[in-house]
Amino acid sequence: MYSVSVDGGLAGKVTIVSKGLKKCRGSPVCVRASVASTPLRVKNQQLKIGDSEKTVRIGVLGASGYTGAEIVRLLANHPYFAITVMTADRKAGQPFGSVFPHLNTQELPNMVAIKDADFSDVDAVFCCLPHGTTQEIIKGLPEQLKVVDLSADFRLKNIAEYEEWYGQPHKAPKLQEEAVYGLTEIYREEIENARLVANPGCYPTSIQLPLMPLIEEGLIELRNIIIDAKSGVSGAGRGAKEANLYTEIAEGMHSYGITKHRHVPEIEQGLSGVANSKVTVSFTPHLMPMSRGMQSTIYVEMASGVTTDDLYHHLIATYKNEEFVKVLGKGVVPHTRHVRGSNYCLLNVFQDRIPGRAIIISVIDNLVKGASGQALQNLNLMMGFPENTGLQFQPLFP
Amino acid sequence: MYSVSVDGGLAGKVTIVSKGLKKCRGSPVCVRASVASTPLRVKNQQLKIGDSEKTVRIGVLGASGYTGAEIVRLLANHPYFAITVMTADRKAGQPFGSVFPHLNTQELPNMVAIKDADFSDVDAVFCCLPHGTTQEIIKGLPEQLKVVDLSADFRLKNIAEYEEWYGQPHKAPKLQEEAVYGLTEIYREEIENARLVANPGCYPTSIQLPLMPLIEEGLIELRNIIIDAKSGVSGAGRGAKEANLYTEIAEGMHSYGITKHRHVPEIEQGLSGVANSKVTVSFTPHLMPMSRGMQSTIYVEMASGVTTDDLYHHLIATYKNEEFVKVLGKGVVPHTRHVRGSNYCLLNVFQDRIPGRAIIISVIDNLVKGASGQALQNLNLMMGFPENTGLQFQPLFP
Amino acid sequence: MYSVSVDGGLAGKVTIVSKGLKKCRGSPVCVRASVASTPLRVKNQQLKIGDSEKTVRIGVLGASGYTGAEIVRLLANHPYFAITVMTADRKAGQPFGSVFPHLNTQELPNMVAIKDADFSDVDAVFCCLPHGTTQEIIKGLPEQLKVVDLSADFRLKNIAEYEEWYGQPHKAPKLQEEAVYGLTEIYREEIENARLVANPGCYPTSIQLPLMPLIEEGLIELRNIIIDAKSGVSGAGRGAKEANLYTEIAEGMHSYGITKHRHVPEIEQGLSGVANSKVTVSFTPHLMPMSRGMQSTIYVEMASGVTTDDLYHHLIATYKNEEFVKVLGKGVVPHTRHVRGSNYCLLNVFQDRIPGRAIIISVIDNLVKGASGQALQNLNLMMGFPENTGLQFQPLFP
Amino acid sequence: MYSVSVDGGLAGKVTIVSKGLKKCRGSPVCVRASVASTPLRVKNQQLKIGDSEKTVRIGVLGASGYTGAEIVRLLANHPYFAITVMTADRKAGQPFGSVFPHLNTQELPNMVAIKDADFSDVDAVFCCLPHGTTQEIIKGLPEQLKVVDLSADFRLKNIAEYEEWYGQPHKAPKLQEEAVYGLTEIYREEIENARLVANPGCYPTSIQLPLMPLIEEGLIELRNIIIDAKSGVSGAGRGAKEANLYTEIAEGMHSYGITKHRHVPEIEQGLSGVANSKVTVSFTPHLMPMSRGMQSTIYVEMASGVTTDDLYHHLIATYKNEEFVKVLGKGVVPHTRHVRGSNYCLLNVFQDRIPGRAIIISVIDNLVKGASGQALQNLNLMMGFPENTGLQFQPLFP
Repeated sequence: MYSVSVDGGLAGKVTIVSKGLKKCRGSPVCVRASVASTPLRVKNQQLKIGDSEKTVRIGVLGASGYTGAEIVRLLANHPYFAITVMTADRKAGQPFGSVFPHLNTQELPNMVAIKDADFSDVDAVFCCLPHGTTQEIIKGLPEQLKVVDLSADFRLKNIAEYEEWYGQPHKAPKLQEEAVYGLTEIYREEIENARLVANPGCYPTSIQLPLMPLIEEGLIELRNIIIDAKSGVSGAGRGAKEANLYTEIAEGMHSYGITKHRHVPEIEQGLSGVANSKVTVSFTPHLMPMSRGMQSTIYVEMASGVTTDDLYHHLIATYKNEEFVKVLGKGVVPHTRHVRGSNYCLLNVFQDRIPGRAIIISVIDNLVKGASGQALQNLNLMMGFPENTGLQFQPLFP
Repeated sequence: MYSVSVDGGLAGKVTIVSKGLKKCRGSPVCVRASVASTPLRVKNQQLKIGDSEKTVRIGVLGASGYTGAEIVRLLANHPYFAITVMTADRKAGQPFGSVFPHLNTQELPNMVAIKDADFSDVDAVFCCLPHGTTQEIIKGLPEQLKVVDLSADFRLKNIAEYEEWYGQPHKAPKLQEEAVYGLTEIYREEIENARLVANPGCYPTSIQLPLMPLIEEGLIELRNIIIDAKSGVSGAGRGAKEANLYTEIAEGMHSYGITKHRHVPEIEQGLSGVANSKVTVSFTPHLMPMSRGMQSTIYVEMASGVTTDDLYHHLIATYKNEEFVKVLGKGVVPHTRHVRGSNYCLLNVFQDRIPGRAIIISVIDNLVKGASGQALQNLNLMMGFPENTGLQFQPLFP
Repeated sequence: MYSVSVDGGLAGKVTIVSKGLKKCRGSPVCVRASVASTPLRVKNQQLKIGDSEKTVRIGVLGASGYTGAEIVRLLANHPYFAITVMTADRKAGQPFGSVFPHLNTQELPNMVAIKDADFSDVDAVFCCLPHGTTQEIIKGLPEQLKVVDLSADFRLKNIAEYEEWYGQPHKAPKLQEEAVYGLTEIYREEIENARLVANPGCYPTSIQLPLMPLIEEGLIELRNIIIDAKSGVSGAGRGAKEANLYTEIAEGMHSYGITKHRHVPEIEQGLSGVANSKVTVSFTPHLMPMSRGMQSTIYVEMASGVTTDDLYHHLIATYKNEEFVKVLGKGVVPHTRHVRGSNYCLLNVFQDRIPGRAIIISVIDNLVKGASGQALQNLNLMMGFPENTGLQFQPLFP
Repeated sequence: MYSVSVDGGLAGKVTIVSKGLKKCRGSPVCVRASVASTPLRVKNQQLKIGDSEKTVRIGVLGASGYTGAEIVRLLANHPYFAITVMTADRKAGQPFGSVFPHLNTQELPNMVAIKDADFSDVDAVFCCLPHGTTQEIIKGLPEQLKVVDLSADFRLKNIAEYEEWYGQPHKAPKLQEEAVYGLTEIYREEIENARLVANPGCYPTSIQLPLMPLIEEGLIELRNIIIDAKSGVSGAGRGAKEANLYTEIAEGMHSYGITKHRHVPEIEQGLSGVANSKVTVSFTPHLMPMSRGMQSTIYVEMASGVTTDDLYHHLIATYKNEEFVKVLGKGVVPHTRHVRGSNYCLLNVFQDRIPGRAIIISVIDNLVKGASGQALQNLNLMMGFPENTGLQFQPLFP
């Protein structure tokens, strides 16, 4: 039914590079053009599917929140994913465009209550529901569905830890065992073979991407890792709360959840995993007067004899073939505005005044690489597509 | 479900569908898939070229300003346009990514001074230079180059008017005669055949799109057209001015250029043209504490016997097949945030309390439909591509 | 060195000489000499303790909203008014500083439910409650209390009009007859003798101050008065609404309540009153991405033979002795940021391009001159104090 | 020196003045005596005209920047200080109100070039000039003038350190010896007797107020003090720089001056002084998308056996009688918006997840307690007035 045949592709001479790019490993159609000035522009032509069974029918559960809307925005230009079901319990029956007018130029199915959703027409779902309820809903989905869950419900491998931080027993411990943690660049192979991916939190994404390789390589000490993180307000979602009114947020800032933010166990789980040792971090998030964007400023002690250059070069080496994680040139400071609306994570390392210490800066868009973008990156892999499919927007600035 | 058959991709042989969409009227390569829920997603697959000579080599003159950067952002995902030359006199020699770090993941030519630019490798240019100097530079370009000029230099057909409003004689009156005014939806056919397009100003775009059809149809009076317009600060460019500092703009607003804004003659030229009669408008722009976005709130007297419904339906009819101009549902208020980062123009009409009057609201992103997006829409047409090529991003919200 | 003797000052018994703050630390009866040197947290107690006929005991009803908090901010430095009762039904029992931490350096009575408030200790109240409920509450207050009501409940003289716009019968029509409309500069004498003042809405204040004198003098036509108004978000109050979240407001703008805003009848009542003829205006409010500030851009037709200079000079003459209403120098554009946090209204008049028309610009801080500041100005008058008492802050910029 | 005698003071019997001001017309008790009822534009004249030994004549050097304007704002309500000279080299001859329209309701002397300023009519100056030039200018002032210098020029006691960080030799080493560091709450007694006060930087103020008492008491370790500081943009001044445009700052954030910010030596000098030992700190400032406000989030190791409660109680004890430094209730998080426009510094202490560590949060308004407010606090002391004179505004929120 869906028949696309492309002869030649762009620019004739395209010579399929791929340089053993990690992200292409399992892909049936991994192509990598060598075009000088615009690496992005050949993307969609390369990625070809020959028949309709390659079209993936997507359900978006919890479509009326910001991460749901962001999924819809990203899929608008995805060549293989088509949304067939959208749920939003409190806005059931409403057209999506009335809830998110910025997306009202798309033709989309009306939103339904999740209990009324028909999943017979769905191959994979993005689950954008609140934690707690998510577990049972995913448990109730048809087993053949691939699932990327953006909630916190399947991120903590240790069920007891979940109960401690979320104050309730875990309702789907079996699924928890099956879930793969979706930090794409680190766990790519497991994700490719996963049925259920627990998409990482925004803070943990921005923190683990720089720290995991450094810890694994033994370049930094496990003690006294101090993380001062800053986030835009969209991370708090679209719920009507006094504290998130424009008047309460604009032109001011503050710390919140000091020592108690629920992303702490997720961060410590990840770092402890690569350290093979319990890591306890200092983590203080701050709410910024901006909608999108997240920066983690991370203060570390280097292992004996290690220099900031060593950290820098190890991150360069780790991410040199990654499309979405970029270590900037020496001394160049990442800004959150330089990733707004995009799936990039920008990193850099700076020498501290205190000898033996280094400062690591990491920025992402909390709704993209910190949520829906990484979720799409993961589902691309799970469905056998190049992970950058539909994700190659440039940041929006100013 | 999805039935698309593309043979050979774009470029002549494409033979598809299109349902007679207006925008395809004159296009040599009109492509239009009938995909139910995701019209955007099949785009790039359909548009195929078979060989390198179909790649258009683009020069961006004045690449270090916001409209230049926006051209670069938009072209990053354009399947046929590749940037080969970038100029920026004061930043010559610098890599583009050091001037606009949000675009530093692209491989782009370094910027050169315009006098050092080699145009032998260029098919078309976007000219993002300041008014005044633009005329001579375009006059000096090789004649075979297609040009979309984003400055005000070729917008006013009447040379005397240019001199009155810009305080200097016009230096390329011959070119002025040749220039086609690039309000895409209104002058599409002339644009397709143009070599030099004068891209409209942001305010005139937002104002003429709703008013021209209504005036042409005789639905509104020519007298007492009152336009209260609001713009984000990016319209003022990237020049370092005290008045545009964050501290001077945030959390406040003001009118500026009252009765004297240089977009006035452009607006009046357009309206007078369709009216066949001199139209004088009241135009008061306001500077908003936001980076992007523009709204024109337009207060009009309706012609005798005309109702707001008549205005509404005429706009609906005029734009029903347009991809980028949308008349919203009755009573739905356009917001600037609903077009941020996208090429859409959203319109609506409201009844006034004063009998016989109506209120028309129009919103665009001043840097996209109001500048670089419309410029790309125009160059697409000039080069024989579907005008939406590379322009199908969804707005970024929040 | 520093010798101050105060007889009969603030707290009657004050007799002190104190040499700087530090020296007060050990002193059991350390009192600052001037008003300026009294720590705020002590002020209200002193005023209460002091000579009661000199001190006005104030109740703030509905203290947990923005206008209530603004009253508290303004009274902090008021030499004669001391807050003795604060009510907030939903936050009863809470200390005010926990609801508005920016005011937590003052010592204030805890908030109580209105039904539990003891008014025996109160001379006057600011009523900052929602419309509708306000009527009955004011009806139930002791008769000797002076009242400034910041709600809309007593602004419309015509009870029928209230019912039409607010959708419910008026519950205190007798009080309505007694209420004086508190547009200070226009109705000063009535206000001085009033017991109940209906404090004007923010939009009506910004609009009537320039238009009333011009209409009264017959300088502008009554037809086709077009008001394009812009407001900061604080006007919407502190209620938790999705539409007012930071993420929904920042970096964008939109019109709202087109032709239906409830300030319309208030504006038309005022203008019709001075016109002795029914005036119908076009009024379109816009929500700005800023917390405070309001601008009305008003488009008018001048009466035959009248010039913008005539308008300008009449406004100059009208307000030349006013402290809070200022007509700027010719051509100087008022900005909302130039009145932020202050009780000023800045005005100016501009010639329009359309012959015979003029553009009037008026800016205020919606929470000060548009609400709590004007309320205090009124109560000062009602209690026999100079109206500027406690209101002479300069605007806060940047 | 200053002898103020107030007879009758504020109270009821006052029956004065009014000069036929319109607003007093019908008032039964028209009062015009108190500071509060004097129109601001008359104030400076009155003070000048009045009993001269009661009035301090003030010069503001560098009045066209934000700290200069803030001095003017604060002095508008000061009962004893009157501005008689204002300088601004590049804006000489201009009325102050044309440079800062938000202050145009005051009557102020026109600005003059500093070389043309007549200091015979001046008792004290606030010096708001850029570092470097300040030294020579202050050296050239009449010796009897009291001076509060807001630049960095006299903050570093060690001349060699000045030269290292500012890249030029110090031009007034003698004055440097005389200068007193103006961190009011810490050095109050020295300030009272000083002729030249070096007003602290904004970051150092926010950092030293919490850390100095804790270090002095030996409660925290001197090693590994990590300061992650966040500032509004007004700290960068009013100079026209591309990097500080609204479009470059809004909706994003970034670190800057990592390890190299010029406030580092000032901070380390202060901490080392109380420690009697060289302290090296990690200090990373971040630029926030907001005009005013500063937060320092400080990560410290506690001395052996010390708890966060110990830190908390020591800060409480240190500042319990201070009007402008407040330690909040346990667990209450300081927000920058809670001090906007005011001279307060809010502090709190939080336990860290890492045993033995604590997190200290300090917020100020960078232009008030971080600059002009503290400068006024200091000059009040130097002139023998209570230090809070003219400084008791409440914060402006929202």
